[in-house]
Amino acid sequence: MKSYQEMSKEELLACKAELEAAYKEIQDRDLSLNMARGKPSSAQLDTGVGLLDALTSKDNLFSEEGTDCRNYGVLDGIVEAKRLMAAIMDVKDPENVIIYGNGSLSIMYDTVSRSYTHGVAGCTPWCKLDQVKWLCPVPGYDRHFAITEHFGIEMINIPMLPTGPDMDMVEDLVSKDPSIKGIWCVPKYSNPQGITYSDETVKRFARLKPAAKDFRIYWDNAYVIHDLYEDDKDSLLDIIGECEKAGNPDLVFEFASLSKVSLAGAGIAALACSKANREETLRTMTIQTIGYDKLNMLRHVRYFKNLDGVKARMREHASSMRPKFEALLHLFDTELSGRGAGSWIAPKGGYFITYEAPEGCAKAIVQLCKEAGIVLTKAGAPFPYGKDPRDSVIRVAPSFPSAEELAVAGEVFVVCVKLATVKKLLGEAV
Amino acid sequence: MKSYQEMSKEELLACKAELEAAYKEIQDRDLSLNMARGKPSSAQLDTGVGLLDALTSKDNLFSEEGTDCRNYGVLDGIVEAKRLMAAIMDVKDPENVIIYGNGSLSIMYDTVSRSYTHGVAGCTPWCKLDQVKWLCPVPGYDRHFAITEHFGIEMINIPMLPTGPDMDMVEDLVSKDPSIKGIWCVPKYSNPQGITYSDETVKRFARLKPAAKDFRIYWDNAYVIHDLYEDDKDSLLDIIGECEKAGNPDLVFEFASLSKVSLAGAGIAALACSKANREETLRTMTIQTIGYDKLNMLRHVRYFKNLDGVKARMREHASSMRPKFEALLHLFDTELSGRGAGSWIAPKGGYFITYEAPEGCAKAIVQLCKEAGIVLTKAGAPFPYGKDPRDSVIRVAPSFPSAEELAVAGEVFVVCVKLATVKKLLGEAV
Repeated sequence: MKSYQEMSKEELLACKAELEAAYKEIQDRDLSLNMARGKPSSAQLDTGVGLLDALTSKDNLFSEEGTDCRNYGVLDGIVEAKRLMAAIMDVKDPENVIIYGNGSLSIMYDTVSRSYTHGVAGCTPWCKLDQVKWLCPVPGYDRHFAITEHFGIEMINIPMLPTGPDMDMVEDLVSKDPSIKGIWCVPKYSNPQGITYSDETVKRFARLKPAAKDFRIYWDNAYVIHDLYEDDKDSLLDIIGECEKAGNPDLVFEFASLSKVSLAGAGIAALACSKANREETLRTMTIQTIGYDKLNMLRHVRYFKNLDGVKARMREHASSMRPKFEALLHLFDTELSGRGAGSWIAPKGGYFITYEAPEGCAKAIVQLCKEAGIVLTKAGAPFPYGKDPRDSVIRVAPSFPSAEELAVAGEVFVVCVKLATVKKLLGEAV
Repeated sequence: MKSYQEMSKEELLACKAELEAAYKEIQDRDLSLNMARGKPSSAQLDTGVGLLDALTSKDNLFSEEGTDCRNYGVLDGIVEAKRLMAAIMDVKDPENVIIYGNGSLSIMYDTVSRSYTHGVAGCTPWCKLDQVKWLCPVPGYDRHFAITEHFGIEMINIPMLPTGPDMDMVEDLVSKDPSIKGIWCVPKYSNPQGITYSDETVKRFARLKPAAKDFRIYWDNAYVIHDLYEDDKDSLLDIIGECEKAGNPDLVFEFASLSKVSLAGAGIAALACSKANREETLRTMTIQTIGYDKLNMLRHVRYFKNLDGVKARMREHASSMRPKFEALLHLFDTELSGRGAGSWIAPKGGYFITYEAPEGCAKAIVQLCKEAGIVLTKAGAPFPYGKDPRDSVIRVAPSFPSAEELAVAGEVFVVCVKLATVKKLLGEAV
């Protein structure tokens, strides 16, 4: 099959006419589908709803250490919840895990906010500094970038490679510039590309020698157990262990949550870090709250029991997610491969597929999809300030639609990609 | 009965000997009781544990507006939870209520923190100001003062009168000093005195003309429905309505939570305010979280159904709390009235009784109690920086112990109060 680049103008015009007709036909179908966010599907949530039955008034409502979970108390979470989250995050010492409320995003917000108001490890609070900068591997997670932007932190793009962020660039910048205070990382099945950081990348992170004493790696291990294939999982080194080995124990904050394990928005979330970081975090946390919801912690522990229970659940998830990923990737392979209309990575886990369209086409494709009733993540969203310098990256979220809906949405997406590519090559406004 | 002040030295010495013998006898009993915090008792929690059965996997898990509460979404809370909290808080428009996670303390922390980092109503963020001051009616709630202290805000004591804070002083300070940005209020059954602000006090709050455009009243309506007597409740004017009438709609943030209604630490919490304050709050909240736990919101709505359901629950609470308050107050009346050993207010609701000991005796009494196995709130805690200028106020929290335990603890408390008073009058170190 010829790529669009190899076609004559006449061939391109013929393609365009055909694609426009297909697009018109799609528009007439009055579709309304959403591939914008990494939301679990209803079917997936159905399989996890037993969580609600895991704790009733008839049950023992005391933690294993004897705390009445119906009452106030226990700032950093019940020990069995710490143990469960430590096992999930592959963190050795459950003592260094703090259990929070229903989302890890607010832990990250709190951590940045606390650094801004009170500083890190005795350093000047960021609000008293003229300039604070942050490294942002791109494409990345829009909600991460929104936090740093909210605090007026200058964000610097770091290219993602197949092994993770460009570590030459990270090492160079971090070692020279003391105004760089952090980096956002989604180290396993990254949002949105699905890349897992290589062992070498993790080790290089652990060995960083930042110019700023208060530089921290924000390690958002959001998809730590979100594998698609039981026998073909990516593996990720334990960053906390690597930092300890490298003599940099305080370099990292690691975040995780059960929102995409139990029920979205009704899970529990956790922070893992060194003893010093933990103690500093708790000094603010004790001002901020009397403690998070221990009954929901207990509910999760009773429901999952242990890591095996969590893994069993994740196999159910995978069986619902896998066909969606495969269907979309199959469609890309058959319809878009070799057409010169963009490229993609086939992830082995996580919640997203990233489609890299020809330069200057992403916004147009998202807009075409929107006008055909398919909502995608806004073009540019995976970049700081919403600015994709090449206008090329599109995040596709296959989790929410049903398999049938996804087949339709994928078909529309393919037509829009082709149409935008062809128009671009013809020099038309896309 | 003679007061201690009327006694001769010999009589005092005789009293002291008798009290010391009684104290020694108490110490030999190896007691271990806690009246330090406003924690519900186990018996009280037993009556609310049905909450856990209010939402099962068999139930409809959609909100009345059709939101799947198992999934992400809805930043400000499901509408039925807003309506329930609005009814509890006596706020007219549920739209102006935002539902949060399990505690109101973290809403207050967030609100101060956001003002510090991003400012209020377009004013300079407090972190960029040389000085920020705050008014603190005293005695008050130690966790309030901890928040403002954490942000380096200078706290100014405002005396509490039987009608609420000294409004002459509040009006005077607020109208003159633009560095005063807020005031902590527990307007109904105040922590720790149990005072409810008079209608005139609420109206004067609503009519304040602060020098600072970003001055806000922090109205912590923690005990809004925590009455002890069905037929003898304090009533509190709706501050939000009063502020609107006075042309000051943006003057107040009102906080409440169900921690002391359903289960402590597993409830839901709410912020009520004007439209402008709500919109400003949501602009940060959308960065901070994808949304709070909607299943716990739904669980509470299904459990209580409506305000009547909540009121029925609070009558159960009252029947457990009332005998404790009455037993302690009866003990004070019979053992301490007319002795010149301090004074107290009998509250009609809330969680605390405040004992005002003779000047210079509070620390000593708390210490004597501690050494006899009775833990009280630290003396000084109800004041900013933990400093009671008269060393006189003791917060007594009768909620947690059983009636039997409370009888014992009360007896010990009385002996310690008398002993400290007598030693003080004798000029001995207390």
